Amino acid sequence: MSVISLLTDFGDKDNFVGVMKGVILKINPRLKIIDLCHNVKPQDILQAAFLLKNSFKYFPKGTVHLVVVDPGVGTKRRKILVKTKDYYFVAPDNGVLDLSLQGENIEKIIEITNDKYFLKPVSNTFHGRDVFAPVAAYLSLGKRIDDFGKRIKGIKHLNLPVPKRVKNILLGEVIYIDHFGNLITNITKDGFKDFLKDSNFKIYIAGRLITKISHSYQEAKKNKPLAIWNSFGNLEISVAGACAKECLSADLKTPIKIIKG
Amino acid sequence: MSVISLLTDFGDKDNFVGVMKGVILKINPRLKIIDLCHNVKPQDILQAAFLLKNSFKYFPKGTVHLVVVDPGVGTKRRKILVKTKDYYFVAPDNGVLDLSLQGENIEKIIEITNDKYFLKPVSNTFHGRDVFAPVAAYLSLGKRIDDFGKRIKGIKHLNLPVPKRVKNILLGEVIYIDHFGNLITNITKDGFKDFLKDSNFKIYIAGRLITKISHSYQEAKKNKPLAIWNSFGNLEISVAGACAKECLSADLKTPIKIIKG
Amino acid sequence: MSVISLLTDFGDKDNFVGVMKGVILKINPRLKIIDLCHNVKPQDILQAAFLLKNSFKYFPKGTVHLVVVDPGVGTKRRKILVKTKDYYFVAPDNGVLDLSLQGENIEKIIEITNDKYFLKPVSNTFHGRDVFAPVAAYLSLGKRIDDFGKRIKGIKHLNLPVPKRVKNILLGEVIYIDHFGNLITNITKDGFKDFLKDSNFKIYIAGRLITKISHSYQEAKKNKPLAIWNSFGNLEISVAGACAKECLSADLKTPIKIIKG
Repeated sequence: MSVISLLTDFGDKDNFVGVMKGVILKINPRLKIIDLCHNVKPQDILQAAFLLKNSFKYFPKGTVHLVVVDPGVGTKRRKILVKTKDYYFVAPDNGVLDLSLQGENIEKIIEITNDKYFLKPVSNTFHGRDVFAPVAAYLSLGKRIDDFGKRIKGIKHLNLPVPKRVKNILLGEVIYIDHFGNLITNITKDGFKDFLKDSNFKIYIAGRLITKISHSYQEAKKNKPLAIWNSFGNLEISVAGACAKECLSADLKTPIKIIKG
Repeated sequence: MSVISLLTDFGDKDNFVGVMKGVILKINPRLKIIDLCHNVKPQDILQAAFLLKNSFKYFPKGTVHLVVVDPGVGTKRRKILVKTKDYYFVAPDNGVLDLSLQGENIEKIIEITNDKYFLKPVSNTFHGRDVFAPVAAYLSLGKRIDDFGKRIKGIKHLNLPVPKRVKNILLGEVIYIDHFGNLITNITKDGFKDFLKDSNFKIYIAGRLITKISHSYQEAKKNKPLAIWNSFGNLEISVAGACAKECLSADLKTPIKIIKG
Repeated sequence: MSVISLLTDFGDKDNFVGVMKGVILKINPRLKIIDLCHNVKPQDILQAAFLLKNSFKYFPKGTVHLVVVDPGVGTKRRKILVKTKDYYFVAPDNGVLDLSLQGENIEKIIEITNDKYFLKPVSNTFHGRDVFAPVAAYLSLGKRIDDFGKRIKGIKHLNLPVPKRVKNILLGEVIYIDHFGNLITNITKDGFKDFLKDSNFKIYIAGRLITKISHSYQEAKKNKPLAIWNSFGNLEISVAGACAKECLSADLKTPIKIIKG
């Protein structure tokens, strides 16, 4: 247990992330702290959940994944610690861990209550510094996870938009837009294959028609949209050499239609 | 001494910060380098001073806090190294350390002049790379601080706006706005209590009235402003679920009035 | 070999960089990973090449410089590994290493083909994660570089705009604009001296006349443009206390004229 990954909506304008790292190193100076992302849209639990799901498995076994996207800070929302076979997760219990833990073997879920491991006085506005960072750091030192609080049975779930099938149509939507402006949809490779079997298909998004899945970003002509399986297994709409978000005037929640036949 | 914290206005668009880290690791490969913040507004010494003051104590004892917000680079402004009981500070002598050192036990102040520890040739535009980074790195190796230059007595001070009392009014202002758009004022918890004793109060900011101090960001109704003690002890104006800066059309220097009674 | 520097156009909005770091640490947990820059303009190979050239020598000997600015990801463009006397470079073969390797003593160039060192399945959209990060990490463990593929003779070159001499005029252009808005031109100190010998000169840029090279940013009056040798040896146009890009309405490719006499 020598790595902590950090995922927050704290941005890079302030000292929030730096202070959390100071707190962590004060407790365990040997840790490696890796920034997963700090530019989650403020309080966007779904976006953070999506990023974590597509990231946590790439880290070394034993990594503590620390997530602080916490609109409920200072309220009675629970703070939790989850142990799976390979990882630890520390986060507010607001659904941010849900996508990552689906399909994982959960060994224990602890509600974090033991203030022995908190920075005092605990503020009402910055549990990242006062609760989550020190808990993650003590955990990395090998403290027993039962020491941090009491076992609970479940975590809060997220309402992720799921693609719908209506006759010969599979209807999804854009759930994430990356730095390049690529549109990531909730159509997964498995869902797509299961829907189509071996039928032909047409893809409609933002008034455009796409008739095949490309193998590289450069397969389409410049400024033409293409569909591609992205590196996390989602159907992604990109525009060769340009920003799909702008070219297609698309955004989060823009619908995508797969028509069979 | 195995941690260096880095606070600059270099942003994240260029190679400036990465190059400083390369220089540091070339001298001391075992160091941990922690980014405190690099998005200080260009040449805004006050903002950097405020961030450092609210951060340095969270780091392990012996940390070297390296600050490069340096509008006077290449001029005759002094370069200084300060040792307190628990920390080292390396910075241009432009007031950026002032808020942090108030109330600290200063053991030594050195004007950095020994070019044995500089990268040569020393440029006139990037002392972060050529002077401050190598000095901090050699310091972390345990070099005696008197080796870096000659002792001096004081550092440059900052003119921080201080709240004023006029009869039954305490008049402050917004001195920092964070990534979420929260308005941090120069009204501190101690100053507030000392002014009010146990009297009632009204808070006015940007034409809005606030009549209590909240305990969490979610205590106000959506889109309503609230006042809260932030995690660094300053009175902060926030808007539940939104950006206070925009909702209140407020900015740096926006006045805040506390009326007693 | 215990440091990897990372230069990408992945920005800081997504999990791409964090995931690459996870992959790297899973293979070599002892590495130090230093961010050189992730805000290269998407797919701007020239900008990345310029940043790398001005950075790589500041790092410890043995550093693996990993560059992922890769518009051709998923196509047949080559992936390469270059060993010089002091450093390793891992990148797509698209010219991004060209400026750095000019004048370096190249010991070996390998086309990376051995998929034993790739993450499987290899995606068509994220070779940073699936190819470049693991190759750099295994390299840092001391694997022989011939194990990664077959030797090749040359790398792709870049068309960098070079200053032109026309009679008594040296004509260059802005090739980079930094976070402060300073205009970095392709006029180098050596080229400038060689052109002028000891003659007088006038500098014209964006309709302004500058008649000397300043020694510090503060040498000009506020809001007046000045010319200065920047810390990497290029002629830079700055405006005292302001943003030169805005003040001069200049941009990339804005011409700069040095007139002799």
